[in-house]
Amino acid sequence: MSKKETETRTPVSKLGKYNLTERLAARFTVVNDSTLQGYGDDAAVAFFMDPLSVSAQQLALEGVDFDLSYVPLKFIGYKTAIGAMGQVMAMNAVPVQLLVNIGVSQRFFVEDIDAIFEGISALCRRYSVDIAAIDVQSSYTGLSLAVTAIGQAEPGLLTRRSGAQENDLICLSGNVGAAYMGLRVLEREKRVFTGETEKDALPNLNGYEYILERYLKPELPSALLENLRRDDLVPTSMCLLKNGLAHSILSLCKASGKGARLFVNKIPIARQCFEFAGTDPSLSPLVAALNGGDDYEMLFTLPLNQYEKVQKEYNLDTIGHICDVSSGCKLITPDGQELTVESPGM
Amino acid sequence: MSKKETETRTPVSKLGKYNLTERLAARFTVVNDSTLQGYGDDAAVAFFMDPLSVSAQQLALEGVDFDLSYVPLKFIGYKTAIGAMGQVMAMNAVPVQLLVNIGVSQRFFVEDIDAIFEGISALCRRYSVDIAAIDVQSSYTGLSLAVTAIGQAEPGLLTRRSGAQENDLICLSGNVGAAYMGLRVLEREKRVFTGETEKDALPNLNGYEYILERYLKPELPSALLENLRRDDLVPTSMCLLKNGLAHSILSLCKASGKGARLFVNKIPIARQCFEFAGTDPSLSPLVAALNGGDDYEMLFTLPLNQYEKVQKEYNLDTIGHICDVSSGCKLITPDGQELTVESPGM
Repeated sequence: MSKKETETRTPVSKLGKYNLTERLAARFTVVNDSTLQGYGDDAAVAFFMDPLSVSAQQLALEGVDFDLSYVPLKFIGYKTAIGAMGQVMAMNAVPVQLLVNIGVSQRFFVEDIDAIFEGISALCRRYSVDIAAIDVQSSYTGLSLAVTAIGQAEPGLLTRRSGAQENDLICLSGNVGAAYMGLRVLEREKRVFTGETEKDALPNLNGYEYILERYLKPELPSALLENLRRDDLVPTSMCLLKNGLAHSILSLCKASGKGARLFVNKIPIARQCFEFAGTDPSLSPLVAALNGGDDYEMLFTLPLNQYEKVQKEYNLDTIGHICDVSSGCKLITPDGQELTVESPGM
Repeated sequence: MSKKETETRTPVSKLGKYNLTERLAARFTVVNDSTLQGYGDDAAVAFFMDPLSVSAQQLALEGVDFDLSYVPLKFIGYKTAIGAMGQVMAMNAVPVQLLVNIGVSQRFFVEDIDAIFEGISALCRRYSVDIAAIDVQSSYTGLSLAVTAIGQAEPGLLTRRSGAQENDLICLSGNVGAAYMGLRVLEREKRVFTGETEKDALPNLNGYEYILERYLKPELPSALLENLRRDDLVPTSMCLLKNGLAHSILSLCKASGKGARLFVNKIPIARQCFEFAGTDPSLSPLVAALNGGDDYEMLFTLPLNQYEKVQKEYNLDTIGHICDVSSGCKLITPDGQELTVESPGM
């Protein structure tokens, strides 16, 4: 860090914990009528019209879940919150409140914490959720973030992983593998920056904006889910794509006691994934799609009789169908080969 | 760690993340009918009869919030969960579900994580709450825990910090300062153990069991709160005692726009606090009560006309009363002196 940068940085101790949380809270205004009590009391309170309270917590730790040498602070809080909200949305629930706890070591300044909350604030506006708790505490080393998302759902619309039925269509809310490829771009640029690669490999993010954004600033398919609810299309099962398509389809099949057939040439993969993979023979767009992770899209199943509607009105990617458990979970290649879907730790 | 200890320890990598969380989840059975979806899906789902969803998140980081050299692992998860649940109870809500995320570095083994969840499991039985999510992830250094408590409340019973009225009685659910004194006992024993104190000072926890337990394994006043609800006694305001009595009364007065008078000789302090303070002239039971923290009791206010009932049926400690904001927040000594209540960072 240069001297100039240090000069414009305020130690947390100068402001004090109370003033710091007040300052952070001032960024946010309550947007949901259902938020009865936001920041400023012991706990958050929501008045839900729907009787189901749906919640998920995400913990993000520096050095494991993110690397601050190439991920700007404003994306850290944003992405952690996206993870928590995405899990709530995967139950077909609508996130309403976020609780944010953050642990910072002495190398973080007030301006750093501001940057983290700038990202969370953008997310709150984008998805109409309220920050209902903020706590900043000391950390011995590094940055830790815990975000909980609380939402509400109608009982009849709840989607679990366990509801998939034989012959159901397997759908994706968007393309997969892009975030993983974006991460690899950032990792390559870090190696160039730290001199680990040959000296003529210049940093180059040009042409990879889409996959970088998918890694740094993922979006959740909230509009699609809202449209499905409006059209009374309730997925029979649903799962957030966090650890790759392979992990998600295996989770869904296991919970539902079913098998699946996925068609390789139906899996949507963005053009930039192929372009970037073309620069490095160790990269495979299909492997990125299956095992890359960080997609934050939804994997879900719909009854076969919805096929026409899904095609005509939604232009959704249907990548395969659910079958009997004895058939296992298979990937069908364009030339008709059957490969068994695998994911580490499943 | 001795060789023998190492031999009975299983690396997390040997079991794998999936098997580990399944193993941890197997400790718990769902006890609340309202828990529609516990561990095993994207998010936790609760069906609440009362329309208010009340939630609080607690983050605990090794080296700052706890010191594993003198706090056994089984108390770490327990206490973090107590913190989250206590905040929910401070709104006069009933905690129903817990979400637990834990980050562990390579120096932690499966048996360590088991110990953490053993403590959480004891708490779940004690307070009839369900573990509705478990996630274990890698940490670069040390142990990190995030626990969210989700509860429900009736709108008419909700208690905020901001509702205190002039002349209200200020009540405590139990004595204060004991946890801080317990911590000091542990810190002294650690110094003896590491040879920092004179060599004739032998480790001695005898006679301090009560204050040690208040630090290691605090209890929440759930029965008292339930009895108050049953008797239609709704506190006008309430606040969890986490950072000391001074911090809590100042928070409550600030939120309510009021002042307070607290009487020193009415503040309940356990006998062992005085006994331990007698061994070390740097310790003051009153300072421990005011600024010690970790009490996990409730500070709350009730209308003056409930005084007789509170005295006769509840044997509650009433330590003062709310007054006009211009009077400030004062501590009255037995000889009639008025001291201004202060707390760091307020």
